[in-house]
Amino acid sequence: MGIEEKQTSPKRVAIIGSGNWGSAIARIVGKTTSEHPELFLSSVHMWVRDEVVEGKSLVSIINDRHENVKYLPGKMLPSNVIAIGDIDKAVEDADILIFVLPHQFITSVCSKMKGKLKENVKGISLVKGFEKIKGGGIKLISSLLKESLQIPISVLMGANIAHEVADDMFCETTIGCSGGEDLQKIYKQLFSTPNFRVVVVKDETTVEICGALKNIVAVGAGLVDGMKMGDNTKAAVIRLGLMEMIRFTELFFSTEASCVSTFFESCGVADLVTTCYGGRNRKVAEAFVTSKKSIAELEKELLGGQKLQGPETAAEVNIMLQSRKMEDQFPLFTSVHRICTGESGVVNLIESLRSHPEHMVKANVHL
Amino acid sequence: MGIEEKQTSPKRVAIIGSGNWGSAIARIVGKTTSEHPELFLSSVHMWVRDEVVEGKSLVSIINDRHENVKYLPGKMLPSNVIAIGDIDKAVEDADILIFVLPHQFITSVCSKMKGKLKENVKGISLVKGFEKIKGGGIKLISSLLKESLQIPISVLMGANIAHEVADDMFCETTIGCSGGEDLQKIYKQLFSTPNFRVVVVKDETTVEICGALKNIVAVGAGLVDGMKMGDNTKAAVIRLGLMEMIRFTELFFSTEASCVSTFFESCGVADLVTTCYGGRNRKVAEAFVTSKKSIAELEKELLGGQKLQGPETAAEVNIMLQSRKMEDQFPLFTSVHRICTGESGVVNLIESLRSHPEHMVKANVHL
Repeated sequence: MGIEEKQTSPKRVAIIGSGNWGSAIARIVGKTTSEHPELFLSSVHMWVRDEVVEGKSLVSIINDRHENVKYLPGKMLPSNVIAIGDIDKAVEDADILIFVLPHQFITSVCSKMKGKLKENVKGISLVKGFEKIKGGGIKLISSLLKESLQIPISVLMGANIAHEVADDMFCETTIGCSGGEDLQKIYKQLFSTPNFRVVVVKDETTVEICGALKNIVAVGAGLVDGMKMGDNTKAAVIRLGLMEMIRFTELFFSTEASCVSTFFESCGVADLVTTCYGGRNRKVAEAFVTSKKSIAELEKELLGGQKLQGPETAAEVNIMLQSRKMEDQFPLFTSVHRICTGESGVVNLIESLRSHPEHMVKANVHL
Repeated sequence: MGIEEKQTSPKRVAIIGSGNWGSAIARIVGKTTSEHPELFLSSVHMWVRDEVVEGKSLVSIINDRHENVKYLPGKMLPSNVIAIGDIDKAVEDADILIFVLPHQFITSVCSKMKGKLKENVKGISLVKGFEKIKGGGIKLISSLLKESLQIPISVLMGANIAHEVADDMFCETTIGCSGGEDLQKIYKQLFSTPNFRVVVVKDETTVEICGALKNIVAVGAGLVDGMKMGDNTKAAVIRLGLMEMIRFTELFFSTEASCVSTFFESCGVADLVTTCYGGRNRKVAEAFVTSKKSIAELEKELLGGQKLQGPETAAEVNIMLQSRKMEDQFPLFTSVHRICTGESGVVNLIESLRSHPEHMVKANVHL
């Protein structure tokens, strides 16, 4: 087969993960692949960590009933989505891997995939969160995947609450892909439906880091809600949080200067706003103020012991800021961290924002 | 007196207007002027359209009790704020005029001020809304003031709900001032308190236009709330609205290319978000969907016949878009307008967003 021919032959898509978000995405990808036979092979492999549900294998239930009865009950999966319990089989002939599994499973799953992948396979990560670096700090999930598999990894993030996507509610998403125009077009086709609108940008780092940093800001917004400080104050906290997200990304992650425009995408301002008005980081932070319980106690009570992302992210970010002696340049991030650990009282939040660098020097006006 | 001396002599500040927002600002300006005697004369004149309250003149009540009992009851005004019923007297020796009155009174008030103003007087507008152009379209209030008085006009806008500012809740605001660094510094000093944090930008046009356009987006957000479409959809509408605000400003108002950063200020994204989650445009639009009454009926019922800003702005903006045959480039603005007039059904909102230009072409990636 000539190179030309190979490049344009339809691609096999495999989804690695089958939880709530993975199943919602399978509904989309099942549809788009069968609508574009010139681009994609119709049958989509979905790796399912098999388990027994009502006495039966979840893999066989999904393939029989076309429904993930455990993680997305009541929603039909397209019949071309094929559940596969064996990770080797799921990925062996895939050209595109969609990673959509809890981040704590990535290392073990990737180690099983090593040496099994097709040449030129590409990956796209829909995984939320980040990996902690030993000694403190944030590593992007895409970096972890790249290092582990040595393949190009793009990302897809946005204001995309899974159950609303599964309900076919209209929304937008952002794909960050630096892998050239052909690949960008393929991803755009693979994920676009009339109710799931895709914008592709090159700047994949910003797309991904937004999703981690927003949770720190949401804790700040929840603290303001708990203190009953009103709409003006909440708006200020969200905006100053956004400015710290931009500055943090520029300082620690950015490879190109033009990343600011990415914050106007769904992965940026839209997802931030949704998280600061809905979302459990906001909720737990509000309860932190009103109940006077510790974050650890509230995690136990409200999240069954699961870690809340905001305080955890704030702690890792704080280590990064401390290492550069830049805590005072990020008063919101720093104050949220100190309040969550009990180092500072809640009132410190607003106190710390009064002398925010944003109020001191502007790009175009120095006062 | 030498020019040098004249430039640095303390300035007289006059506030034109004494409603809810005017009185809240008087609390701030009364404080800052007395704290900076090197910059400002301590006594601040506040023009009050006199009226009889409980058998007494409002002007004399304010000067006796230091409280605007009618428009901001329960909040003390600093004693250096002097209410004056005569507009001539209020402005005659003023160096800085703060305009904070309902926009329908501007023309008549300005006509009384003509010829009475000091040389080199500067104005700053806190007036919400816009002036309609005959035949349709939006004229900025600052333009109206400039034309009427032939003086430089800056603007102050932001996520600043008046009663929360009066309650000394922490917030941010944006001043747009193209009048040079000295004037920018003066305004920054005049309005900054520990709870009212000022950012000054040069781009005064964008600062002002945001405040008008946000109300169209808030109607869109309210329609989504009324249709119970969830957080993802609302986030998409807010973000697409923001993108249309940016594009509209660039097309119809912008004089400098760098206006995009202004949308990250309090006057931009912060005020937009507050208006789309709180605010009466959102509320009435929600009721429009759930009650099936017309906007006119709801204005009568909920606002005592007062015009809602969102639908009115959408109508003026639509005339501007039509004149350039650009309605299809602004699907949210256009759809909100058509829904408000009854020309389109509510479901048209989402339908129109499916092929939004934002999803077609990106600055950095053309797909």
